[in-house]
Amino acid sequence: MTDTDRGHRYPEPLTLIRVAELVDGRLEGDGTVLVEGVAPLDEAGPSHMGFLAIKRYARLLGTCQAGSFLVSADMEALLPAGSPRVVVAEPYPALRSLLAHFYPERAAPAEIHPTAAIGRGVRIGEGVRIEPYAVIEDDVSIGDGSRIGAHCVVGARTTVGARCRLHPHVVVYHESVIGSDVILHAGARVGSDGFGYTLVDGSHRKMPQVGRAVIENGVEIGANATVDRGSLGDTVVGQGVKIDNLVQVAHNVKVGAASLLAALVGIAGSTRIGKGVWMGGRVSATNHLEIGDGARVTFGSTLMRDVAAGETMSGYPARPHREQMHKQAHLGRLPKLLDRVERLEVEVERMSAPGRADSTS
Amino acid sequence: MTDTDRGHRYPEPLTLIRVAELVDGRLEGDGTVLVEGVAPLDEAGPSHMGFLAIKRYARLLGTCQAGSFLVSADMEALLPAGSPRVVVAEPYPALRSLLAHFYPERAAPAEIHPTAAIGRGVRIGEGVRIEPYAVIEDDVSIGDGSRIGAHCVVGARTTVGARCRLHPHVVVYHESVIGSDVILHAGARVGSDGFGYTLVDGSHRKMPQVGRAVIENGVEIGANATVDRGSLGDTVVGQGVKIDNLVQVAHNVKVGAASLLAALVGIAGSTRIGKGVWMGGRVSATNHLEIGDGARVTFGSTLMRDVAAGETMSGYPARPHREQMHKQAHLGRLPKLLDRVERLEVEVERMSAPGRADSTS
Amino acid sequence: MTDTDRGHRYPEPLTLIRVAELVDGRLEGDGTVLVEGVAPLDEAGPSHMGFLAIKRYARLLGTCQAGSFLVSADMEALLPAGSPRVVVAEPYPALRSLLAHFYPERAAPAEIHPTAAIGRGVRIGEGVRIEPYAVIEDDVSIGDGSRIGAHCVVGARTTVGARCRLHPHVVVYHESVIGSDVILHAGARVGSDGFGYTLVDGSHRKMPQVGRAVIENGVEIGANATVDRGSLGDTVVGQGVKIDNLVQVAHNVKVGAASLLAALVGIAGSTRIGKGVWMGGRVSATNHLEIGDGARVTFGSTLMRDVAAGETMSGYPARPHREQMHKQAHLGRLPKLLDRVERLEVEVERMSAPGRADSTS
Repeated sequence: MTDTDRGHRYPEPLTLIRVAELVDGRLEGDGTVLVEGVAPLDEAGPSHMGFLAIKRYARLLGTCQAGSFLVSADMEALLPAGSPRVVVAEPYPALRSLLAHFYPERAAPAEIHPTAAIGRGVRIGEGVRIEPYAVIEDDVSIGDGSRIGAHCVVGARTTVGARCRLHPHVVVYHESVIGSDVILHAGARVGSDGFGYTLVDGSHRKMPQVGRAVIENGVEIGANATVDRGSLGDTVVGQGVKIDNLVQVAHNVKVGAASLLAALVGIAGSTRIGKGVWMGGRVSATNHLEIGDGARVTFGSTLMRDVAAGETMSGYPARPHREQMHKQAHLGRLPKLLDRVERLEVEVERMSAPGRADSTS
Repeated sequence: MTDTDRGHRYPEPLTLIRVAELVDGRLEGDGTVLVEGVAPLDEAGPSHMGFLAIKRYARLLGTCQAGSFLVSADMEALLPAGSPRVVVAEPYPALRSLLAHFYPERAAPAEIHPTAAIGRGVRIGEGVRIEPYAVIEDDVSIGDGSRIGAHCVVGARTTVGARCRLHPHVVVYHESVIGSDVILHAGARVGSDGFGYTLVDGSHRKMPQVGRAVIENGVEIGANATVDRGSLGDTVVGQGVKIDNLVQVAHNVKVGAASLLAALVGIAGSTRIGKGVWMGGRVSATNHLEIGDGARVTFGSTLMRDVAAGETMSGYPARPHREQMHKQAHLGRLPKLLDRVERLEVEVERMSAPGRADSTS
Repeated sequence: MTDTDRGHRYPEPLTLIRVAELVDGRLEGDGTVLVEGVAPLDEAGPSHMGFLAIKRYARLLGTCQAGSFLVSADMEALLPAGSPRVVVAEPYPALRSLLAHFYPERAAPAEIHPTAAIGRGVRIGEGVRIEPYAVIEDDVSIGDGSRIGAHCVVGARTTVGARCRLHPHVVVYHESVIGSDVILHAGARVGSDGFGYTLVDGSHRKMPQVGRAVIENGVEIGANATVDRGSLGDTVVGQGVKIDNLVQVAHNVKVGAASLLAALVGIAGSTRIGKGVWMGGRVSATNHLEIGDGARVTFGSTLMRDVAAGETMSGYPARPHREQMHKQAHLGRLPKLLDRVERLEVEVERMSAPGRADSTS
């Protein structure tokens, strides 16, 4: 990973005027202030822009050392009066542009490290970098400009597209398909066997897992995440999907394009996730579900049923978010309800007693 | 993993008559149809058998391209009239037989790769394969026909039985015991230290973890799963147990024979799981529990108490499934209950008002 | 890991008198009994001390083979009458002392294995051990007495303090900071990119992750756990924190000193955990939370809101434990409540019927 990663160092200072141009923002205050980086409010020094985009962090402004600010328009009023600032409507794309300037990626030298173990029939494109102790098995194909980290293992007959980045210690099993512009973090496992057994003579026998794992273009998969190969047919992670650390994607799952799965999400076998779905951390989905396009599933929820397109789900078991909120509200009224019923019982008892006396008299 | 894994290719075509013989099924329709593989209904082409064993996938039959079908008897009626098919009572064992035919495992050449680092006093059986950069520490024993993947590390004094398959990047810590016919997937960690500390002078001091991890015959452990060694005494994963990806088995846990733990299951320290227990994905169990033989725990449940043999548990905290269903039903009636109490209050108020007038008159 | 780890073997026998001295305990019974180790009650043989500190295991005493016992004072009465024993107030520190005697750690030979790939400008302290196939990138610094396991990758410009132990297959990304006396288990990933994207022209674009991962002194991190680097600013795991297997610590999280995070815990981005916090297994916390010093979060809970210092939280969503207990109690009374409301309705109907007749007459 040596000298090619973005790093903490060597920011090239910019004037605030230049920052405003770069991010297409509005400059307020002294535009000649020099900026050497961007930092959170509680870690910024005088040469940094403090970044404010989430209201709850405004409380840190009181002790903030930042010499200037990058701020979203709706929070500008929270800044100290007169402080130099660049104001933008969309703070995160602006931050992204700025970081790309301060921390430019440098090209990694293309080289096949002499300790890399390269099999027979391997096709390696232009400008590929293969780091120490990587193992590339027979008949693998690696596209132009891709980088295979130290100790990675790429199984036989797997194809890796162009401009991919496999961080160290990735394992891709045999016959997987990795598209272009894919990033796999350390310890990601792609194409491992699914959890498939069948009872034969009273013991669990392994079902051959003969499908593939297909990772489409522009996917990023986090550290120690696992994507199993298909049992029959393929497991597919669609174009531009982003998967966080320690996520499990089981055999024959399909994840639609541009979906986001946060850390520790678990998707059980054969579940189909639509396009543009968002799942918060620790969400899980049982097997054979259909989750519609654009669905959102809140942090920690557990899906046990199909989800309609565009629906927001929460809870365990997950229900539409609005319904879940009602349920919580009802639950919250339960203690008072107990009191009300008790009062009713006393009252009815009181009313009933003489009445019953009447009716028996 | 090169040329020895099952793969997508080279299926040898079979007539449907031959398929019916292989799986001991009933042939309907044209038995001379040639079959080149089995596939899910939505991925099958004309040369494939479409596989139908789960009713909800019958909706895919309308657009299915399969030239023939492998189908369970209770779903045969759903197939297009007259389509060639093989009908079986138990579709999964049949599928398993068929896949073993189409995707035969080929023997891996027995060889010790020259880059493998082999310690002193290592005993290696007949027909063992050790792949590039594997590290076998001192006094390890590896049984006949086992295969140690690239970059695996087998710690000192560990024994590995016969016919095991350690996929690349497995780490087995020192003094572990791995039985025969064990499969460990990429990134599985066996014998790591348990989470044991004790307060000494106000800080957490590590408790030595001096027990072992014992993995019995026929176990399979998924990618990036972790099985800690015992603190005192051993952690034991019993015969034929199957463990999915990203599962945590803590120190001193005992998992009884033939139990199944699906992905992201977490078992806390010293909990004992009986034989033939099934835990769905994301189930967790707190420490020092006893979980009886044959218990079933539904997807996403959290066990906080002992479980009786044969019981089905669900929920958070988990309760017997029937009780949990009652609880959910009661909860579902809560909104109406609120309305009913409100009506009662109005009615009692109405009845009470004149009465109170009477009593004060 | 070869010959330097604690192991199952070679205990040097001690008399019970000597054991009592070592652990500062009270001896009862025959002090000349020879002890070769400590074991759980159901695995102890005649030459072992059986260890009893948790009441529920007293049921194992009936069939226990132990020749003597190490027992906490409050459970002494449960032991078989007259059995030789050492009685202590605090059994776990006593056990720790005893295990340190029976299973002494032996010094690992300091050597740089010839297959280790060492970059330019690497500074290596005294007595460092670097095992086979480790990759140490440019400008890394490794402190005195540290040990880097087989296949570890330490990224460029990272510093590792003194007396650290990186078990095999650890990956530390570039520019991370590892303090002294840190233990990282197999497959731990430190400094991987956080899960940060922003929508640009309708697709998710990666936010550069330019902060660091900082692991302070005395931290232990379990197998396959992940600690992301900061996006802006740093992710910090504070002094003496202990993190179990398969835990996720997201970008910009701060974990205060001496906190404990059990297995499968997930902490989402920017959440701040105070000092001395305890989180049971599978706890998760959503992003941007503040969790006060000394908070406790029970097994399996899901934090969606800030937590006050010293509070005990449980449930999903987590609430103060006492409140949660009340809620559970109320829920438990729901079935009876339904019955009570039904009886009220009958009674009110009965009372109301003649009255209504009256009023319409």
